[in-house]
Amino acid sequence: MAGAVEWMRLALDLAVRNVEAGGGPFAALVLNDGRKIAEGVNSVTRDNDPTAHAEVMAIRAACRQMGTFRLSGCQLVTTCEPCPMCLGAIYWARLDRVYYAANQQDATESGFDDSLIYQELANPPSRRRIPLIAIEGVDARAPFTAWQRHQSRTLY
Amino acid sequence: MAGAVEWMRLALDLAVRNVEAGGGPFAALVLNDGRKIAEGVNSVTRDNDPTAHAEVMAIRAACRQMGTFRLSGCQLVTTCEPCPMCLGAIYWARLDRVYYAANQQDATESGFDDSLIYQELANPPSRRRIPLIAIEGVDARAPFTAWQRHQSRTLY
Repeated sequence: MAGAVEWMRLALDLAVRNVEAGGGPFAALVLNDGRKIAEGVNSVTRDNDPTAHAEVMAIRAACRQMGTFRLSGCQLVTTCEPCPMCLGAIYWARLDRVYYAANQQDATESGFDDSLIYQELANPPSRRRIPLIAIEGVDARAPFTAWQRHQSRTLY
Repeated sequence: MAGAVEWMRLALDLAVRNVEAGGGPFAALVLNDGRKIAEGVNSVTRDNDPTAHAEVMAIRAACRQMGTFRLSGCQLVTTCEPCPMCLGAIYWARLDRVYYAANQQDATESGFDDSLIYQELANPPSRRRIPLIAIEGVDARAPFTAWQRHQSRTLY
């Protein structure tokens, strides 16, 4: 994409400024038709929100801006290769493509290590460090049954 | 855990009521010391926020409640096995354990299919459907350098 380098420089500047403002060293932009429609910075510690990664914040801001929960046709520019949580958010948002600058190794060397999470997701649930325990003896499908009956449901 | 079945029934009720209120068929609770400290429901379509899964909403609410970005010592009760985004959030939040009722197959049969995302995360980036493109020719480490120099940074 023409301009990706320039957009990335803007994102990197935003990340540097976020550090100076007390945030984490990450920023992201959402582009649509070659224009920036939203930006996000890491505010995990400032907002006491472990999900406030730059990519999640940019996706949420772009969806607010566009009045939709899908960003098909949009691109994400992020200063660092996304962690599994953010990659999941990118798939749910149906972004077209992702540009990144720093890679996972750069992040690890700076103390932001998400390799454990990538490993854990690759492990079967029974071998993960955070136990995932199935509860028996409940009507687990009740919400789905209600959903199937609900007339005005919005599929996504 | 004593009471997990009862907490799950509460979460399932919350999910059914969320469907009736126009939300998605998912709910989650965060427990601490055997007490519920927060709850969350899927509000993706209502809030136009693709990250507004029940687990993410419950984690964010619990962190606000506790004034922290870490939920060590807490448990998550979720009506459905978490998707990769939510599993990532669970790791970042450092929850102790997760109880779930419906499994991925139940969700898929109801039209909520996250198996693609699990497959995609297992693929190497070059073989994923949403291209992840590294940008060269920028100072990718500038935010990390700023971070290393920043005196009051909070590690997490």
